[in-house]
Amino acid sequence: MREIVVFSGSNHPSLAQRICEELAVPLSPSHTTRFSNDCLQSQLLANCRQRDVYIIQPVAPPTQESLMELLMMIDAAKGASAAQVTAVIPHFAYARSDKKDAPRISVGGKLVADLLAASGVDRILTMTLHAPQVHGFFSMPVDHLTAIGILAEHFRGWDLSDHVVVSPDLGNAKTATQFARLLGLPVAAGSKQRKSDDVVVIDAIVGDVAGKRAIVLDDEIATGGSIVELLDRLKDFGCTEAAVACTHGLFRGAAVERLSTHPMISQVVTTDTVAPPSDWPQLHVRSVAKLFAEAISRIHSGTSISTLFDGVDPTHAPPQPSLFA
Amino acid sequence: MREIVVFSGSNHPSLAQRICEELAVPLSPSHTTRFSNDCLQSQLLANCRQRDVYIIQPVAPPTQESLMELLMMIDAAKGASAAQVTAVIPHFAYARSDKKDAPRISVGGKLVADLLAASGVDRILTMTLHAPQVHGFFSMPVDHLTAIGILAEHFRGWDLSDHVVVSPDLGNAKTATQFARLLGLPVAAGSKQRKSDDVVVIDAIVGDVAGKRAIVLDDEIATGGSIVELLDRLKDFGCTEAAVACTHGLFRGAAVERLSTHPMISQVVTTDTVAPPSDWPQLHVRSVAKLFAEAISRIHSGTSISTLFDGVDPTHAPPQPSLFA
Amino acid sequence: MREIVVFSGSNHPSLAQRICEELAVPLSPSHTTRFSNDCLQSQLLANCRQRDVYIIQPVAPPTQESLMELLMMIDAAKGASAAQVTAVIPHFAYARSDKKDAPRISVGGKLVADLLAASGVDRILTMTLHAPQVHGFFSMPVDHLTAIGILAEHFRGWDLSDHVVVSPDLGNAKTATQFARLLGLPVAAGSKQRKSDDVVVIDAIVGDVAGKRAIVLDDEIATGGSIVELLDRLKDFGCTEAAVACTHGLFRGAAVERLSTHPMISQVVTTDTVAPPSDWPQLHVRSVAKLFAEAISRIHSGTSISTLFDGVDPTHAPPQPSLFA
Amino acid sequence: MREIVVFSGSNHPSLAQRICEELAVPLSPSHTTRFSNDCLQSQLLANCRQRDVYIIQPVAPPTQESLMELLMMIDAAKGASAAQVTAVIPHFAYARSDKKDAPRISVGGKLVADLLAASGVDRILTMTLHAPQVHGFFSMPVDHLTAIGILAEHFRGWDLSDHVVVSPDLGNAKTATQFARLLGLPVAAGSKQRKSDDVVVIDAIVGDVAGKRAIVLDDEIATGGSIVELLDRLKDFGCTEAAVACTHGLFRGAAVERLSTHPMISQVVTTDTVAPPSDWPQLHVRSVAKLFAEAISRIHSGTSISTLFDGVDPTHAPPQPSLFA
Amino acid sequence: MREIVVFSGSNHPSLAQRICEELAVPLSPSHTTRFSNDCLQSQLLANCRQRDVYIIQPVAPPTQESLMELLMMIDAAKGASAAQVTAVIPHFAYARSDKKDAPRISVGGKLVADLLAASGVDRILTMTLHAPQVHGFFSMPVDHLTAIGILAEHFRGWDLSDHVVVSPDLGNAKTATQFARLLGLPVAAGSKQRKSDDVVVIDAIVGDVAGKRAIVLDDEIATGGSIVELLDRLKDFGCTEAAVACTHGLFRGAAVERLSTHPMISQVVTTDTVAPPSDWPQLHVRSVAKLFAEAISRIHSGTSISTLFDGVDPTHAPPQPSLFA
Amino acid sequence: MREIVVFSGSNHPSLAQRICEELAVPLSPSHTTRFSNDCLQSQLLANCRQRDVYIIQPVAPPTQESLMELLMMIDAAKGASAAQVTAVIPHFAYARSDKKDAPRISVGGKLVADLLAASGVDRILTMTLHAPQVHGFFSMPVDHLTAIGILAEHFRGWDLSDHVVVSPDLGNAKTATQFARLLGLPVAAGSKQRKSDDVVVIDAIVGDVAGKRAIVLDDEIATGGSIVELLDRLKDFGCTEAAVACTHGLFRGAAVERLSTHPMISQVVTTDTVAPPSDWPQLHVRSVAKLFAEAISRIHSGTSISTLFDGVDPTHAPPQPSLFA
Repeated sequence: MREIVVFSGSNHPSLAQRICEELAVPLSPSHTTRFSNDCLQSQLLANCRQRDVYIIQPVAPPTQESLMELLMMIDAAKGASAAQVTAVIPHFAYARSDKKDAPRISVGGKLVADLLAASGVDRILTMTLHAPQVHGFFSMPVDHLTAIGILAEHFRGWDLSDHVVVSPDLGNAKTATQFARLLGLPVAAGSKQRKSDDVVVIDAIVGDVAGKRAIVLDDEIATGGSIVELLDRLKDFGCTEAAVACTHGLFRGAAVERLSTHPMISQVVTTDTVAPPSDWPQLHVRSVAKLFAEAISRIHSGTSISTLFDGVDPTHAPPQPSLFA
Repeated sequence: MREIVVFSGSNHPSLAQRICEELAVPLSPSHTTRFSNDCLQSQLLANCRQRDVYIIQPVAPPTQESLMELLMMIDAAKGASAAQVTAVIPHFAYARSDKKDAPRISVGGKLVADLLAASGVDRILTMTLHAPQVHGFFSMPVDHLTAIGILAEHFRGWDLSDHVVVSPDLGNAKTATQFARLLGLPVAAGSKQRKSDDVVVIDAIVGDVAGKRAIVLDDEIATGGSIVELLDRLKDFGCTEAAVACTHGLFRGAAVERLSTHPMISQVVTTDTVAPPSDWPQLHVRSVAKLFAEAISRIHSGTSISTLFDGVDPTHAPPQPSLFA
Repeated sequence: MREIVVFSGSNHPSLAQRICEELAVPLSPSHTTRFSNDCLQSQLLANCRQRDVYIIQPVAPPTQESLMELLMMIDAAKGASAAQVTAVIPHFAYARSDKKDAPRISVGGKLVADLLAASGVDRILTMTLHAPQVHGFFSMPVDHLTAIGILAEHFRGWDLSDHVVVSPDLGNAKTATQFARLLGLPVAAGSKQRKSDDVVVIDAIVGDVAGKRAIVLDDEIATGGSIVELLDRLKDFGCTEAAVACTHGLFRGAAVERLSTHPMISQVVTTDTVAPPSDWPQLHVRSVAKLFAEAISRIHSGTSISTLFDGVDPTHAPPQPSLFA
Repeated sequence: MREIVVFSGSNHPSLAQRICEELAVPLSPSHTTRFSNDCLQSQLLANCRQRDVYIIQPVAPPTQESLMELLMMIDAAKGASAAQVTAVIPHFAYARSDKKDAPRISVGGKLVADLLAASGVDRILTMTLHAPQVHGFFSMPVDHLTAIGILAEHFRGWDLSDHVVVSPDLGNAKTATQFARLLGLPVAAGSKQRKSDDVVVIDAIVGDVAGKRAIVLDDEIATGGSIVELLDRLKDFGCTEAAVACTHGLFRGAAVERLSTHPMISQVVTTDTVAPPSDWPQLHVRSVAKLFAEAISRIHSGTSISTLFDGVDPTHAPPQPSLFA
Repeated sequence: MREIVVFSGSNHPSLAQRICEELAVPLSPSHTTRFSNDCLQSQLLANCRQRDVYIIQPVAPPTQESLMELLMMIDAAKGASAAQVTAVIPHFAYARSDKKDAPRISVGGKLVADLLAASGVDRILTMTLHAPQVHGFFSMPVDHLTAIGILAEHFRGWDLSDHVVVSPDLGNAKTATQFARLLGLPVAAGSKQRKSDDVVVIDAIVGDVAGKRAIVLDDEIATGGSIVELLDRLKDFGCTEAAVACTHGLFRGAAVERLSTHPMISQVVTTDTVAPPSDWPQLHVRSVAKLFAEAISRIHSGTSISTLFDGVDPTHAPPQPSLFA
Repeated sequence: MREIVVFSGSNHPSLAQRICEELAVPLSPSHTTRFSNDCLQSQLLANCRQRDVYIIQPVAPPTQESLMELLMMIDAAKGASAAQVTAVIPHFAYARSDKKDAPRISVGGKLVADLLAASGVDRILTMTLHAPQVHGFFSMPVDHLTAIGILAEHFRGWDLSDHVVVSPDLGNAKTATQFARLLGLPVAAGSKQRKSDDVVVIDAIVGDVAGKRAIVLDDEIATGGSIVELLDRLKDFGCTEAAVACTHGLFRGAAVERLSTHPMISQVVTTDTVAPPSDWPQLHVRSVAKLFAEAISRIHSGTSISTLFDGVDPTHAPPQPSLFA
């Protein structure tokens, strides 16, 4: 079996460190410098020749810098005769740019997938893409993990008798439905109209929330604008309080203030696919490091990722049915 | 300006004929033969050299035959030095295979998009892809039309006071929401679990349907199994009757019998993106020929497709907002 | 050495089973379903990760269905991180579409080779392509076996004193010449003009057949029309009877009736590259399973395929000369 | 319509000059220099920007030099923003390397087709490829002319009553058959075994040649070894004399001496796809310049090449049938 | 002739405006927004269909943001069916990353060229790449302008009798030599060793500078560290004062302070390929807008760019010799 | 670990033999034949299946023949299912064609890199490219060795007190600077203007050479014209004698006579990257075989090439700094 070498970009080295600890392999050193003309240069400081190289880097804020650093590290590894390069992208923020909903725009998720292909990467390991179809934007194999098992585990042991899972958006309600089934709860969803990037109007709640406590599930929270809008509407419809769960907790701009002080919110839980904010001690953060380490280990040893999770351990992945059971 | 040449595959020549009539260009002859070893051979019987060639062919049942014929016609046109080849695919059935929801399957929609790229096609003109993200599976420009304007027009003039638009599936409820806004109606959706290709269980209706009449909107109806399951559930929730609207009316297997005789159904309306069944005279069919002709004409003359519809004519496309209005 | 995994498409699972028995590896399960919109979906039901995957599927009637299923299985294996995928195509029927003999047609063999490349396949293992040049249509390595050794073996032990090998077509007479040399016989050939797919006129026989018994050799027999036309001409030229040998026995349409009852025909021998007709017990079928198993085994172990057969065992491949002996 | 610019490589400028005269466009200047390290450098000395560029160069002896010069001229034209570049290759000698008839060799014709694709060429215009399947080696459109009309015209007016067309090789007898039909003659062929590049053994003649005069037709004559071997065999079988016709008359090594003094040969006719030998005044040379000029003119104006010849003028191309007449 | 449409990215709209004024075409509007997850989205607000699109954007600080915006605008234009997209990159800062001078680094200039190719761009128009070889990193046509004519013009009319042109680096002295010839001056160069990105040691001056006034020519000035180091050395060798000229004046970090107050410096001249600093009124800025406009105009009309400058107007480009004059 | 197989093209088999001796692996046989139409055919006569194949061939005079043979051997190895193919190109003469210094020429080095990519090669191992940027022309990994350690070793032990290293060209002075540092010597350079391929004018020497003995260092010497011109100028500036060192000693045309009899030259030293002239016994030739063998061995075993030389053994490669030490 070929040797494994793991590098981390600058975006989230502590996650890379945790993954390596789970894997029991050292995190290999690399160094990115910024030239005086603002161009980047990344150097991998461990031998890659004929190795299986894993480069861990969220494509998340600072998004352009993180993307370019990742592309350079992949290119450097390929140029250094790596046998295979896997980009480990715990959060792929460009997945939200997944459709052409206005004339003459780029489908950003597809463009970035093409840039990754141009860099020569052999495989992508990622988590909770904004829509499952984004998988099809990539021309190389993608191993696509989910955090809903990890998030569901957070709520086990609670008294969930009067709870309802709420998706902020009808269009993404499938994952909420899956999450609700893991917890044995009903589901509701907001009917959302996006006015602009940060302005949404939720004009209806489909599903019954009156007198209930909500567990709001979203894939990514950035400024928290949609969530606050949803909470207002939930309150209008008689919902009494809400826990908020999301995979990718960016919490940018006013998010920490908005969410940590909102009267409807009982607690917020997220994962460490991106670095959590340092100024929010009450935030519950569940680590995905063990799950990524397990996936890397299985990719490397050539054992199946799907069979591991197939109905056995719902904390890691949704039950993956045989199509023809 | 280069000359335009339009060919039709075997799947739906009458639609091609109607589009050509709207365009006021002749439908150029072609011929597909089947060799005794079941291989196909397509010959284009009009000069393609330096022309803009349009090949009209749904990728719809018989799906594999239609796809292969389309690929061969594209390849023949490219080999005959066509300047540009546009595949006009009124229904792209493989768009339903848009995600990897089981281990070790092909994302069929992406694969077929890659096969089309391998054939050398320059542009795709299509309608109502199952999910908007499927756009990103293609590596060449895609002009993506919608029929919801045409379908909404069908309901104008009705007394819609106690109606509700119902989507069979939470996951695809966005288009229903858009359609409902065109008609000024509320929206509801089924919470669907797919057990297998033709067996779905709808375990809840989110949104209020009690005492109302439904307009069920779906992108594609094949055997009608999902629709019938939805109608049962709608009845359980107090809905009194339903009109059914869909863009791509395949009506295969028992569909005609199931839908034409269902006690809840007041009427069914569809378009001619695929050939309608010959044994169902009560079916309402609205033609998309004029809309495709207009798009081809604008592609050819280099005028914008988006500005045409931008807030002006909601029968043709959803209002395409400036992102930054 | 990496593990080997063998799958079979739906076209000819019994051949796949025989090959696996020779290889002493299990045939791994897979399942292809047809959605209600006539789209296919293939699922591989064994782990492919870092394995060498072989997918056995003739591209033969039903040709389009078999091709699409093969492409999906390849795509699924690549997406599941297979180390290498070899398409084992015992009969590649599209090889007959090998030239542009009319304006504005596709060279089907080349197009399908490009589709296979688009699916990501790494290597092709096939047998008796209609013309040896078709090898050059593929952009990936092709291992190209021949069945003439197996067919020649069938005639060993016969009294061949007054026999002549006859090719139906001057243009393909090289293989017949090679076959004749294996049996120490003279060769003759028809001068064929193809009027259409199923109508050929043979206006002359070049070579001496008067008073002789013919062994007619063809690569593929579909409806048998060419063979019957040839037999009529052979009779005109004084030939007394004929055995018929072909690698790919499709026997479609009226073929079984035509050939099993033809007064000139003494017997028909073919191989199992495609499934033989069930209603023709007198047909002699020689299996290619052992030969394919041996090739797969050598591909896998990295031993030479050519040196094995190089002048040693003419039953498997034509003697492969050193160019510079 | 875009402007046309024609350049010639160093291989055969006089043919380029004749084609330009027929086209009534000037031959644009270019210059190839050889650096002292034996690398080539080609400069195009006329503006290419947004023009349709045609580069005329046989890939023929000196074959490697001619190929590299052609690739550099194509690359230079593409780099200079030519709208389209057509390589006009009157003789493509690498077409003879069309199959893998020994282990671990390159299929040279396919490799060179790939090199041409890598250089960025948009279209190939060529004549009489060694095998029609070679067309399928190219990934860009190929317009494939034939000289058999021109060669047949040479024999019109002769008393052909006791003539027979003879192909040196059964495997290539199809073109001879077509040629024979143009002249209303029967056809015969040698059964050839190639021992090495320049040593062939013809062990049989299929077809009747006794007491007849032969017209031997070959696509390319290099050293003439095969032809002389064939003539010996023809004589053995009672043939009295032979005219020799070929499209590509390379006449290398001892060819001129062999053929000009052979007692069986009445005359030799060829075309100017390559430069004829200067020391053979009796050689009949028919020019292909007019045919190439007509093809270029039709490519440029976007009129069909096939319909021009479709049954109308058999001097230029074989009748190109509708497949479905 | 197709219509021309010009867009500007966010990096340097005032240059785009000046180029459009010279071209007498309007600058078409576009809009780039930053989503709350730091992903960019660019929308082109004018019709691109079948147009020749030019997108003006330096790949310069903020380099990653500018690059990503450019890639998205190209992708949007291609997806909107532009006939041709030219990226106008007045300064391509990644050209400095042109070699692999340490193990396991990316050659950034080549990587970015590949990313541009992945975005679908058809042509690059740029100026003064750090090394002329960088041209070869691009797989599409590159029109490569030079500013040395514009810079030389600045010094015309000066009393240049005791001046010498000085290159900071032996390795890039060719352009300085060319510049010196335009002004009829001798040339000298520093022998530079780069210790790190911003630390260089110049340990020798080759060429005679004692008692002379220098014109220091560099392609890009970022922090000015190399220039200051050079000036110290020039002083050591007896040089009395220096004018500084560069094409790409980034003037980042301490550059303005360092250079505007340096006792050796008489004046600094640069161009507007990037936006000049606002806080340095004494800086001489010569515009390249007219030169870019002329190049775009000639690209569009299909007239030669090289012949324009060929020995005629040395202010725009270096004399472009016929190789074979 | 996979097996290693080494082949040699026809250009320089004795170097291949020496490399194999150092590696202690046999040189596997291959055979290239020239068909009578001047096309090449290469056959590899050892099994390549799943092996790591190395093909040793300078792209040097006869350049086109050597290049084509190399491409065919690579293609043959890939077609024979080699696991990886590395082209070992001790001298890549086309690297001198590294920029577009005249309109409408091909950048030959980039074109040939693209041809190598089209042949399917996986990695390049080469030495002393004319400019380090040429590395970026290749789309596959390049391991780029230098001979300056080997050449410097030649001068160790000399009394170097009054010596100066001289580069013939300012533009390439960086390597000379590096070489000078290895020997602790100062550096000077000619200011060269190339009039044509073989005519250069050196109009100045920058740096002090009066009364000194020169060691002239060049990457490639072909006809020696530049060297002689440089020596004349060195003499004018008071230099007393010169040793000449170069990596790639082609010595074509009058070079041997010019250099072996020149009164200024004390001795000439080169390497065996190309075959040295047989008629120049005084020429000092240092072998690069050991260095190439070491590189191949390290590539094969997956140990780092860079760390080997990193500051340890300056005879093999320039010290490769950590960028961030």
